[in-house]
Amino acid sequence: MKKRLLILIGALFIGLWSAGLALAQDPGGAATLEANPQSPVDYVWILVCGFLVFFMQAGFAMVETGFCRAKNATNLMAKNTIDFVVASLLFMAFGFAIMMGQDYNGLFGTTGWFLRGSDYDVGRYLMFFWQLVFAGTAATIVSGAVAERLKFRAYFIYSAIVSLIIYPVYGHWVWGGGWLSKLPFGVGHVDFAGSGVVHTVGGFVGLAGAIILGPRFGKFAKDGKPKAIPGHSITLAALGTFILWFGWFGFNPGSTFSAHQLRIAVVAVNTNLAAAAGAFSALVLVFLKTKKWDVGMMLNGCLAGLVAVTAPCAWIEAWAAVVIGLIAGILVVLSVYFWEARGIDDPVGAVSVHGINGVWGLISVGLFADGTYGLATTNEPLVRGLFYGGGVGQLIAQLIGVGTCIAWAFGLGFIMFKIMDLCFGIRVSPEEEIKGLDIPEHGTPAYPGFYTMNS
Amino acid sequence: MKKRLLILIGALFIGLWSAGLALAQDPGGAATLEANPQSPVDYVWILVCGFLVFFMQAGFAMVETGFCRAKNATNLMAKNTIDFVVASLLFMAFGFAIMMGQDYNGLFGTTGWFLRGSDYDVGRYLMFFWQLVFAGTAATIVSGAVAERLKFRAYFIYSAIVSLIIYPVYGHWVWGGGWLSKLPFGVGHVDFAGSGVVHTVGGFVGLAGAIILGPRFGKFAKDGKPKAIPGHSITLAALGTFILWFGWFGFNPGSTFSAHQLRIAVVAVNTNLAAAAGAFSALVLVFLKTKKWDVGMMLNGCLAGLVAVTAPCAWIEAWAAVVIGLIAGILVVLSVYFWEARGIDDPVGAVSVHGINGVWGLISVGLFADGTYGLATTNEPLVRGLFYGGGVGQLIAQLIGVGTCIAWAFGLGFIMFKIMDLCFGIRVSPEEEIKGLDIPEHGTPAYPGFYTMNS
Amino acid sequence: MKKRLLILIGALFIGLWSAGLALAQDPGGAATLEANPQSPVDYVWILVCGFLVFFMQAGFAMVETGFCRAKNATNLMAKNTIDFVVASLLFMAFGFAIMMGQDYNGLFGTTGWFLRGSDYDVGRYLMFFWQLVFAGTAATIVSGAVAERLKFRAYFIYSAIVSLIIYPVYGHWVWGGGWLSKLPFGVGHVDFAGSGVVHTVGGFVGLAGAIILGPRFGKFAKDGKPKAIPGHSITLAALGTFILWFGWFGFNPGSTFSAHQLRIAVVAVNTNLAAAAGAFSALVLVFLKTKKWDVGMMLNGCLAGLVAVTAPCAWIEAWAAVVIGLIAGILVVLSVYFWEARGIDDPVGAVSVHGINGVWGLISVGLFADGTYGLATTNEPLVRGLFYGGGVGQLIAQLIGVGTCIAWAFGLGFIMFKIMDLCFGIRVSPEEEIKGLDIPEHGTPAYPGFYTMNS
Repeated sequence: MKKRLLILIGALFIGLWSAGLALAQDPGGAATLEANPQSPVDYVWILVCGFLVFFMQAGFAMVETGFCRAKNATNLMAKNTIDFVVASLLFMAFGFAIMMGQDYNGLFGTTGWFLRGSDYDVGRYLMFFWQLVFAGTAATIVSGAVAERLKFRAYFIYSAIVSLIIYPVYGHWVWGGGWLSKLPFGVGHVDFAGSGVVHTVGGFVGLAGAIILGPRFGKFAKDGKPKAIPGHSITLAALGTFILWFGWFGFNPGSTFSAHQLRIAVVAVNTNLAAAAGAFSALVLVFLKTKKWDVGMMLNGCLAGLVAVTAPCAWIEAWAAVVIGLIAGILVVLSVYFWEARGIDDPVGAVSVHGINGVWGLISVGLFADGTYGLATTNEPLVRGLFYGGGVGQLIAQLIGVGTCIAWAFGLGFIMFKIMDLCFGIRVSPEEEIKGLDIPEHGTPAYPGFYTMNS
Repeated sequence: MKKRLLILIGALFIGLWSAGLALAQDPGGAATLEANPQSPVDYVWILVCGFLVFFMQAGFAMVETGFCRAKNATNLMAKNTIDFVVASLLFMAFGFAIMMGQDYNGLFGTTGWFLRGSDYDVGRYLMFFWQLVFAGTAATIVSGAVAERLKFRAYFIYSAIVSLIIYPVYGHWVWGGGWLSKLPFGVGHVDFAGSGVVHTVGGFVGLAGAIILGPRFGKFAKDGKPKAIPGHSITLAALGTFILWFGWFGFNPGSTFSAHQLRIAVVAVNTNLAAAAGAFSALVLVFLKTKKWDVGMMLNGCLAGLVAVTAPCAWIEAWAAVVIGLIAGILVVLSVYFWEARGIDDPVGAVSVHGINGVWGLISVGLFADGTYGLATTNEPLVRGLFYGGGVGQLIAQLIGVGTCIAWAFGLGFIMFKIMDLCFGIRVSPEEEIKGLDIPEHGTPAYPGFYTMNS
Repeated sequence: MKKRLLILIGALFIGLWSAGLALAQDPGGAATLEANPQSPVDYVWILVCGFLVFFMQAGFAMVETGFCRAKNATNLMAKNTIDFVVASLLFMAFGFAIMMGQDYNGLFGTTGWFLRGSDYDVGRYLMFFWQLVFAGTAATIVSGAVAERLKFRAYFIYSAIVSLIIYPVYGHWVWGGGWLSKLPFGVGHVDFAGSGVVHTVGGFVGLAGAIILGPRFGKFAKDGKPKAIPGHSITLAALGTFILWFGWFGFNPGSTFSAHQLRIAVVAVNTNLAAAAGAFSALVLVFLKTKKWDVGMMLNGCLAGLVAVTAPCAWIEAWAAVVIGLIAGILVVLSVYFWEARGIDDPVGAVSVHGINGVWGLISVGLFADGTYGLATTNEPLVRGLFYGGGVGQLIAQLIGVGTCIAWAFGLGFIMFKIMDLCFGIRVSPEEEIKGLDIPEHGTPAYPGFYTMNS
């Protein structure tokens, strides 16, 4: 059985590999440069922004480990690395072709396997690099929601499935010329830098994982009341948040996919303002409730603002970015309480930050888009939301996208984790969980030189 | 009383907000691109450098927490985040207009509130982003000087005042077309990337705070002799220094505000050399005295070199950057001893690094500027100091700037902290200070999983 | 004796300094811009990539300290800073002239001392900046191999010698127009971004140091069996690896030294894929052996993939980058066991990561170069390896380079450490080693607020 599966996978590899044996297009780049002598600045912009997006992997790793306990820190480092590793390899082989290859009936792409044939081209490699770092970001969001109890093996397999199917297919619908982008409402469903494609997808796959896993040992009292399980380093969580904020300046402004769109300046400003506003409102809201300046919530508020502004960042004014961020900061706090009250344990708040605020970001496009800017590639048509006289068309397109995204991500995520759970059990044993995953799964504690508590 | 103040602030918001309801200039960017087809590379340069400057927030957070005790680490993360959050929101609403709006008699700017009206323009948003990350840097310097004893509430209010008044008004005088830039000596007072505007301002506001707060419990013996209070992580302090050094490559070279100034290469080299020279001289000086290779002083020497070269970096040769850095490294060591001997407690050496070496940087322009380069926007007139046959004119302009900067920053900083102290007391209680600020102010220790000492 | 040496050095300084008093070429940059109006994007690209390479210093510091014990963390921060400090100062004064100055018989360069005279030019400063960050990287590799037992003083002197002689002379042979680049095989010995020039050099100097120092106390049992000495923070090691991965996106793609080479997109993709493949194969290989998901080996596998792809990154297809990375990940695991079995103690695996995989990278050019791209400056001749019909010519050129590099780096490294050892003893005393180097050498433990174990 296992052998047959391996043979099947091998045949698939060889088949798609051979599909690309046609001539290369412009691997050296000289022809591309001659055709468009202004392209170097676009290449520089996209690559540098892509590097920043890559660096968000470090940010996610630090935030998640900071908000979790020292006894699982090695495990979190392993997961936050392996998801990008697996995404890199499988997105190159298959995912990119499915997402950005030639469209098949608005459903998925069909060319570009292994970046071979006519995809051995500087422009295609550039696009691959950009799409890959986004795929890696979507993958890494989930690790926070399933932290401290998911087996490494399950995470390994999850990384493959999200890179092969869940992310690229939905990505194709929105960014690859698929059906969502062609909805007959507004300008079609739009998502500038991926509040939906990256964050809602990641957040709701994470929610499925958190539900199937169940809460961590000790998270809920016998009466169902949630108990705080403090992480092991606010410092690392803050460092991670700064790294993410920094990386988001690649994520959002780079999504013009061109430096000739000077709108990048507006995108950068809006990105920053929403982050600040989210941190502000989350901090103040919790302070009003508890009289403590809660740093963890401030950091999550900041990330929530960033997630929310990711979809609308190119189509709104500065003040709207502030409003969107303020609401995101409030939403993340309420959402954290909401899931906790329902017995769902999301150790770092990934569902609230990425899932819920991804949704809010998609909706906000339909409200705040001010009609001064269009789609990056064509500049047209202009995107206009309800508050700027655009009617409800765009809002409807956004809501259809929201529904589709949640159904797809949560649905496939649930099926995936469920099947794995039935096959080999995705949760570590209670003894391993209490001891921490580092030693049983990885053989090394994260901090062998320090005296740490087992809490 | 409090209600009236809120009404007043509300009216101010609405008034300035409405002031900007005129038509937008070029929010989409197409007209700007057509007018200057070479502008994309400038946008890329300024944005990427701005991202690097933003990332310095992470550097400051790590350096400061590394040099302070574990029991205040959460508090330092909170402060190092909130200052940038507050700066982002208030600089957008008011500070930017005061600093870079249309000049009123050389004193302050008067247009661009909320980035609305004709400021809804890609070029203005670009400039705002650049100025904002600098404003945020000035704000964050102070947290080190007042660390481990200032109430979070006071820091919150301080962040607002520095973003609204202290930074933008002085910034207008130097960079916004104000009176210091038009002094009839040399080419007027110049400060390429902000040794004065950012660092001297931050350092001397910090000095005012440190004086009003008084030293930390245990910093001075009964006979007034200073005692070392070691920080909790040399590793984080070093990481933070590397991040700052990295970010400074945005800070200084980006201050050409144009990639068409190829002088950016010279600026980058000078920035790096001064950092290295400052680290070198501080390390060797302390070694000669103590026979120990003091890492803390080396890191501060590095930062001192960076601060000092910030003003002259575009107008000097490589060897001069080395000399300026070597002197900065010596100055920072002497300065640390100087303030300690006077009973002033600056936990991370912020006054010595930023205040004193900011002054040294401003002065060094009047000495080492070699007459090969001018002002970035016009290339003219060339800046020339005493050692290159420029006479004392430039030096006089620099000294007037130094005096103004210190008087303004220390003066307003003193008044601000004093008023707050009289209103609600800016220092935490002795019990809270000894316990550490993390639990009483924020409810969460930074490292709950580790056994830490309370020292 | 010491006095005479100082006089000699002083005379050398003054002599070379004066040699550069001719007129400057284009320090302001206006003439360069006029001659090539497209150059700003190249300057931006090279500088930003150079900043990223600089940031790798932080990555090395975190990886090394993470893999070593807490009692030596201050020492590792000191070493990882001082090497870049010394490299900056001495490479500016002498190293750059030796490496990139006017060629003397294919052996070394002879002009550009102190960046003076005709080297006071925006283009030369740009090249200096780029070469400097590479020199600093080579220097910092060694600190891992000699960690936890080398005296700081010896490391200080080592930093000078590597920056003055070992690195720039070999660099001249490959990148400065020296004899290796002109070998009559293939297109001459090529090394796109420095698998050899930077990594093999660093790795084999490190090997010499590790051999002369001998293993750390407790590394080998009496029967010679190696024992694991776990580091103190997997989290920092992972953070460092992410930073290095991020910085490598400057290291490799920036080595086109021009944004007009759109091949940069291919380089970025290949760099990422090799990193991922190396992490993957190292992780799986160790898992098959031990049934544990070893994070340390995965991180080293990732770095090994990066090192290996550094030489071929511009001349290969995506799938070849994956193959090169997979092999690198296996090589690093085998190499770690190999040296351990021979009684050589390399605490962080620097020899295996940089030395061995640098060699593998150089060789892989002769196998996988696909003939679609040439040398960055001229686009010609195209580089073609054995598997693409290029015959064995290129492979021979690569092997000659490998032999030369190992002989030069290991030979001079051995002589250097040996002479120092004879003069003053390069290893700390057993008491200091057991206690940790932080307090005896630097006076400050890295984590004074935490309870740590002395293991």
